[in-house]
Amino acid sequence: MAAPAPLSPLAPKSFPTPPAIAGLRFATVAAGVRYADRADVMLALFDKPAQVAGVFTRSKCPSAPVDWCRAHLAGGEARALIVNSGNANAFTGGVGAKAVAHVGEAAAKRIGAAPSQIFMASTGVIGEPLDGEKIIAVIDALVTKAEAGGLPEAARAIMTTDTYPKIATQRVRIGDTEATINGIAKGAGMIQPDMATMLSFVFTDAAVAAPALQAMLAQSVARSFNCITVDSDTSTSDTLLLFATGTAGGAWIRDAADPALRPFQRALDKVLLDLAHQVVRDGEGARKFVEVRVEGAKSKKSAKRIALSIANSPLVKTAIAGEDANWGRVVMAVGKAGEPAERDKLDISFGKIRVARGGARDPDYSEDQVSAYMKRDKIVITANIGVGRSSAKVWTCDLTKEYVAINGDYRS
Amino acid sequence: MAAPAPLSPLAPKSFPTPPAIAGLRFATVAAGVRYADRADVMLALFDKPAQVAGVFTRSKCPSAPVDWCRAHLAGGEARALIVNSGNANAFTGGVGAKAVAHVGEAAAKRIGAAPSQIFMASTGVIGEPLDGEKIIAVIDALVTKAEAGGLPEAARAIMTTDTYPKIATQRVRIGDTEATINGIAKGAGMIQPDMATMLSFVFTDAAVAAPALQAMLAQSVARSFNCITVDSDTSTSDTLLLFATGTAGGAWIRDAADPALRPFQRALDKVLLDLAHQVVRDGEGARKFVEVRVEGAKSKKSAKRIALSIANSPLVKTAIAGEDANWGRVVMAVGKAGEPAERDKLDISFGKIRVARGGARDPDYSEDQVSAYMKRDKIVITANIGVGRSSAKVWTCDLTKEYVAINGDYRS
Repeated sequence: MAAPAPLSPLAPKSFPTPPAIAGLRFATVAAGVRYADRADVMLALFDKPAQVAGVFTRSKCPSAPVDWCRAHLAGGEARALIVNSGNANAFTGGVGAKAVAHVGEAAAKRIGAAPSQIFMASTGVIGEPLDGEKIIAVIDALVTKAEAGGLPEAARAIMTTDTYPKIATQRVRIGDTEATINGIAKGAGMIQPDMATMLSFVFTDAAVAAPALQAMLAQSVARSFNCITVDSDTSTSDTLLLFATGTAGGAWIRDAADPALRPFQRALDKVLLDLAHQVVRDGEGARKFVEVRVEGAKSKKSAKRIALSIANSPLVKTAIAGEDANWGRVVMAVGKAGEPAERDKLDISFGKIRVARGGARDPDYSEDQVSAYMKRDKIVITANIGVGRSSAKVWTCDLTKEYVAINGDYRS
Repeated sequence: MAAPAPLSPLAPKSFPTPPAIAGLRFATVAAGVRYADRADVMLALFDKPAQVAGVFTRSKCPSAPVDWCRAHLAGGEARALIVNSGNANAFTGGVGAKAVAHVGEAAAKRIGAAPSQIFMASTGVIGEPLDGEKIIAVIDALVTKAEAGGLPEAARAIMTTDTYPKIATQRVRIGDTEATINGIAKGAGMIQPDMATMLSFVFTDAAVAAPALQAMLAQSVARSFNCITVDSDTSTSDTLLLFATGTAGGAWIRDAADPALRPFQRALDKVLLDLAHQVVRDGEGARKFVEVRVEGAKSKKSAKRIALSIANSPLVKTAIAGEDANWGRVVMAVGKAGEPAERDKLDISFGKIRVARGGARDPDYSEDQVSAYMKRDKIVITANIGVGRSSAKVWTCDLTKEYVAINGDYRS
C-alpha cells in the first residue's frame, strides 16, 4: 500500500461533533480485511428495530452487499448495519453472495434479530473474494463495545483513501419534537487504485416510518448526491441508507406529504448536500471545488444534463486546474450535451464576471479580473442557455495531474 | 505560442504518397491568421464542379463555417474548398457568419463560381473573431499556384497542434474504371488550449454523384470517425467533406445501393478508418492506442454504448497509462453504461489473456503475462457481455499526465 495521501486542501476547516441518538450505538474494530493497524469494520447497532430507507448504485454490475440490501429493504426494518473497508465484495460471483449471507446470519444470531434486519456495505478492492470469516470473528467484540458516541470513529473506519472523515449533523423540529439527523459518508476517492465506492449512512431519532423515509430520501438524493461528479465514473457499490429510531418521541409519521415533515426534508437536504460537497472536496487530486449553474434551459432535466456535460468535460476540468477561464470549452460542453440551446443566446460567467454574451465574447470583461477570480479555490461557472426558465446546479472538482498519478499507479 | 509538441510515439512509421486526381489542384499559403512562418490556409480547386457530401458536428453550438457548409450542401456541387488553421471562427456571432460569407463570395468571384459552390472550414481558437480579409488577400495567390501534387502540403496547412499530418489513400475498381480515394485529416488534438476541431477532407476521381456519396459517407463515418474518442469532448467545428470529380471516367452513379459501388464503399471505409486511427494516435498526450471490443451485447447500439463507456472512462484510461490491467474498472464501466448486462455472465480479456470470467476473476490467468502485455503500445480490451450476439469496436488512447499538462496550461 502507498503512503496515505496528504489532507485535501479543500477539506473542511473543522468537523462537527454530532449529538448522540438514543437507542443507537456504534463500534469499530481492526479485523484485518486488508489494512493493517487500523479499524476497518464498523457496526451501527439499534436497540430496537429502526425504520430504514435506501438508494443504491444504478450500475448493472452491483456488488454483493448492494444485492443483499436491495432484497431486504422491503422489510423496512433494521437492527444493525455492518460496513467493512478494504474489500468491495464486488464482481466476486457466488462466493461474494455467500460471504454476505454468512455475515448477515452470524450478526443476526448474535443480536437476536432476523438476517433481513442486518444491512451491509463493503468498500475497497473490486474482484477479490471477501473473507467473511474475518468479519464474523469480530462481531461479538463489536456488539460488546458498541457505545452511543462512536459515530466519528465509524466515519473513519469506512474510509479507504479518503483524506478526511465526512460527517454532517442537523437539528430539526417535527411538531413538538426536537430531532437530530447525523450522517457520515466516504468518497469516490479512487486514490488507491481499484477503490470505487461512495457510501453514506444517515441516522435520525425522528419517528419517520420507512415509506416516508424512502420518499424523502429520494427527494434529497436528487438534489445532492445525484448532483455531484468527480470523474463521471459510477461505482459498483454506491449505497446510501437512512435509519430512523423514533427515539426522539412523537407519533410515527408514514406519509412524506405530511406538512409536519417539511422541516425534516429541509434538514435532510442540508445533511446530504453537506456530505456530497465533502465528497467532491475530497475528489482524487482535487484542488478546486466547482459549482456549475445552468439557467434558462428548456426543462429541469435538460438543465441538469447540460450542467453534467460541463462538469464532466475533461477539457473544462483541466482548464480550471490551470486557472484558465476558458469559456470556449464551456461553449463546447453546452453544445455537446445534445439539449436545446442556441449559440446566439448563450451567456457564460465565471463568478460574477460575464465573459460571453449572446453568442460572442463579452467586449466588456476584464481578463485581469477573471484571472484573479480563477485563483480562488471555489469556482462558480454559470451558463445561461437563454431558451427557457429551468435551472440546475451540480458540483465537481478540477482534473489535475495528481488525479492521473493517483489512478495510473500500478494496481499490484 | 508554446513550442511544437514532439512527434507522437504512436505516429505512423511512414506516410503514403497519394496519386494525383485529375481536375483537382491544391495550394497552401502563409496568410498570418494566427501562426507566423507557416502555411495556414489551404485551397482545393476543382476545374469543373465536383459532387460533394458532408457530415458535421452534432454540437448545438456549431461554428460559422459549419453553418455555411450545411446550408450549401443541398446543392451537391463544389468548385473549391478553403480551410484555415489558427482560428475556428466558432462562437463569433454575426461577425463570424459575415466573415465566412465574404470569403465565400470573394473566392467565388475569383474562380467564376457561385458562392454556394465554395466550401469552407476553420480550426483553431474559439471565440476570437476571424479576420476574413487575411484569407481574401491570399485567394489570388492560392488560385494561381494551385497544382495537382499539393495534397501533402494541404494536410500540413490544416494542422493546429497535431504532431503529424494525416493522409490515407486507396485505389479501387468501379466496373471497368480504376479510381483513387485520397483523404486528409487533422486531429482533435487540443494540445494548445482552445483548439478543438476534427477536420477531414476526402477526394476521389470516381464518378459517384452526391446522393450516393452522402449515403456511403454516412455508412463509413459510422464505422470510423464515430467510433473514436480521445476525451469524450465534441468540437464545435467537426467537418468531414467528400468530393468526387468523376475524372476517372465511367457513367455517374447516383444510387449507393448499386452493386458496382461495393468496392468503393470498402475502400472509403479503409481510408476513413485509417485517418480516424491516425487521429487517435495523435490524441493529446497519447502513449497507448486502445481498441475496445464489446461482444455478446443485446444490440449493436447497446454494444457501442458499452464500448464508449469503457473507452471514455477516465479510470480505465488512467489505468492503461499506468500499464495496469485493471479489469475491475472495466466492470465498473460496463455497469455504468446502463445497457443490458449481467455481472455473472461477463468475461473480460486484455489481448488474448482472459482475466475475468462469468462474474469473477479468472483463476487461470497469469499476472506476469498480463503485465507484459500492458507494456505494448497497442492494447486490445475485450468485454463479452454474455447476453446477446451483437458486437462493436471503438478506439481511444490512454489518459496521461501530459494530457492534463497540455490542456491545463494558461490560455493567454
